[in-house]
Amino acid sequence: MPEDAVQLAGAQTGETPVLLRRDAGGVATLTLNRPEAYNALSEELLAALTEALEAIAQDDAVRVVVIESAGKAFCPGHDLKQMRSNPDKAYYQRLFAACSDMMLAIVRLPQPVIARVHGIATAAGCQLVATCDLAVAAEDARFATSGINAGLFCSTPAVALSRNVPTKPAFEMLVTGDFVSAEQALQWGLVNRVVPAEALDATLAELTGKILAKSAVAVRMGKEMFYRQREKDLDGAYAYAAEVMACNMMADDAGEGLDAFIEKRKPVWKDR
Amino acid sequence: MPEDAVQLAGAQTGETPVLLRRDAGGVATLTLNRPEAYNALSEELLAALTEALEAIAQDDAVRVVVIESAGKAFCPGHDLKQMRSNPDKAYYQRLFAACSDMMLAIVRLPQPVIARVHGIATAAGCQLVATCDLAVAAEDARFATSGINAGLFCSTPAVALSRNVPTKPAFEMLVTGDFVSAEQALQWGLVNRVVPAEALDATLAELTGKILAKSAVAVRMGKEMFYRQREKDLDGAYAYAAEVMACNMMADDAGEGLDAFIEKRKPVWKDR
Amino acid sequence: MPEDAVQLAGAQTGETPVLLRRDAGGVATLTLNRPEAYNALSEELLAALTEALEAIAQDDAVRVVVIESAGKAFCPGHDLKQMRSNPDKAYYQRLFAACSDMMLAIVRLPQPVIARVHGIATAAGCQLVATCDLAVAAEDARFATSGINAGLFCSTPAVALSRNVPTKPAFEMLVTGDFVSAEQALQWGLVNRVVPAEALDATLAELTGKILAKSAVAVRMGKEMFYRQREKDLDGAYAYAAEVMACNMMADDAGEGLDAFIEKRKPVWKDR
Repeated sequence: MPEDAVQLAGAQTGETPVLLRRDAGGVATLTLNRPEAYNALSEELLAALTEALEAIAQDDAVRVVVIESAGKAFCPGHDLKQMRSNPDKAYYQRLFAACSDMMLAIVRLPQPVIARVHGIATAAGCQLVATCDLAVAAEDARFATSGINAGLFCSTPAVALSRNVPTKPAFEMLVTGDFVSAEQALQWGLVNRVVPAEALDATLAELTGKILAKSAVAVRMGKEMFYRQREKDLDGAYAYAAEVMACNMMADDAGEGLDAFIEKRKPVWKDR
Repeated sequence: MPEDAVQLAGAQTGETPVLLRRDAGGVATLTLNRPEAYNALSEELLAALTEALEAIAQDDAVRVVVIESAGKAFCPGHDLKQMRSNPDKAYYQRLFAACSDMMLAIVRLPQPVIARVHGIATAAGCQLVATCDLAVAAEDARFATSGINAGLFCSTPAVALSRNVPTKPAFEMLVTGDFVSAEQALQWGLVNRVVPAEALDATLAELTGKILAKSAVAVRMGKEMFYRQREKDLDGAYAYAAEVMACNMMADDAGEGLDAFIEKRKPVWKDR
Repeated sequence: MPEDAVQLAGAQTGETPVLLRRDAGGVATLTLNRPEAYNALSEELLAALTEALEAIAQDDAVRVVVIESAGKAFCPGHDLKQMRSNPDKAYYQRLFAACSDMMLAIVRLPQPVIARVHGIATAAGCQLVATCDLAVAAEDARFATSGINAGLFCSTPAVALSRNVPTKPAFEMLVTGDFVSAEQALQWGLVNRVVPAEALDATLAELTGKILAKSAVAVRMGKEMFYRQREKDLDGAYAYAAEVMACNMMADDAGEGLDAFIEKRKPVWKDR
């Protein structure tokens, strides 16, 4: 648990919180904090994540989000023991809907979300990496959609994976359950950077620093547009993106940004 | 012709069958068997493939399918002499519909299909590789959508190619008709593995072995879901995949798989 | 300005034309000609490009189009000074619609379009590269969607970028505004070739030569089909592509192409 993790999410009196949140300089860092379970996504952790994301969506002080994990692993996916002890279809429907809602909350979050991955990221843990807008991985990180090894095809992870990795490699991961290396994940586009574990923090700082230097209103409009335009045909995507861009131009920050560019000075954002 | 190819598909009395099928240990291997024509997809071979796939779809003993070819080449696409001798639009409409139906039969087949590629795979032969769920290629394999060289843009191959290879490389292949190497195909995601020709069988055995070790019911649900979710928007894909996953959890094999995982033993599948 | 640029587009009496067109041997080369502004896409240049593309669309003598730039850079995107001096939403709506229409005119153009890229290609300049059917880049070319640095997320460029580059790398480019090298662009599929600057012309000649050797009617039917089928589901794409291919077979050139292939001679196209 990071020493400076002062604000706790999902905490109950007397219990160790399953999710930590710490805020510093516009960066909200969410730490999956079930190291004894390799940070498996229990119902409680899913709920805490969704709740934290909903709070961050309303928090203009947050300009970028990092999702990281305590202990040896990033995330092994669902909590299989908890799943097995509730052998009931209605329970599973609620569980997978809750997990999907959490993933969609990342996509719909106004702020960019960066996964900081070390150790294994499997099943819904691999989906979490695929779902984040950006991902930085340690060299020792390994990725798999391994549900198939337990008789459970990673269907919801496939939604995110197949939108980040080419078709045949994605299907191979899903049907074999095999691990792929960080280097392979980088080549396919599942992560943006692979660095030695000791360089993870510096790489995160560099990447969050770049986003912090941007106009929050432009980033916000752009992130929403990015995912929505992909679901339209080409004519519809252009009509929509052109309208978003005209709106973006009417923001104070675009005027300031263009002035600063023309005057060869640094812009001063108002985030509106 | 493999010595153990005992079950023949599409055979007529006294004729050499254009397609061979042999089954062993849950693997059905279909061999394109027109080596004198480099395994061109004649009407008869297309019909035999579709028929064989329809039979396999109903055959629970088959858990994975391999498509391979006899002779020097994997497949050069349609049989151009046959096409040219039927210069009639209705004929071409039936022919391309039959070819598309065969390709769709691979996508809709419950079992995963692996292409075993050596030599050239061009036009509809390249499409056949792109359409299979997985593909293993010999180092000497070469791929092209070469119809354009004969005045016929590879339109139906483009459907499969553009869903497996990035946009500009796909368009380049289609408009130039140029060959690309197995190594290049691997980099783009058109094939999953490239190995020396003498290692093809071992690589196929390794890959089919991995799939044979899975629950057939989970693989079946997953394969159908994989292709269907890609055609939905993100919300729709998640709603659908979450429901598939809840159904998958109600299969006996998922319960057994989770128990085995928790008890750290090998699962025993019932395939239901 | 190339010495042989005899036909001028968008020229006004006494002014330097913002766009040059020269035609040679079936290749129309459009040269962005505002080197003093690094070829920024002013309203005038966008209008000249759209007008030139509309003329080329009707010009059967043109079989392939090259878009290149005069001076040090390929294109830095919109003309920011001009944008800033028109701080009016209706103006921006018209401007971004005009830019999107120009990009769509490239996609809808019957002839393939190749970008010849040197120096920087940023914002709508990067989009122009992504939009062309093929792209050849000098080793020193660099690509960025840098609008975000001026408070303006590259929304319309994202439409083209996200259809050519994997999801996470595309989002990283858009949110960081960072430059990527030609080599990186090649790996992601944003360009087809990277060569030393002095080899650009030879590479373009090789690529245009390949397209010139094809049947224009087959290329035309294929290009339209390529982009349209991508917006359909798999069944719809196959139904459409199969019909296009049957029509293609009824063209004189397909008959000639098949005859030539069977007779092992070079085809003689009639382009119909």
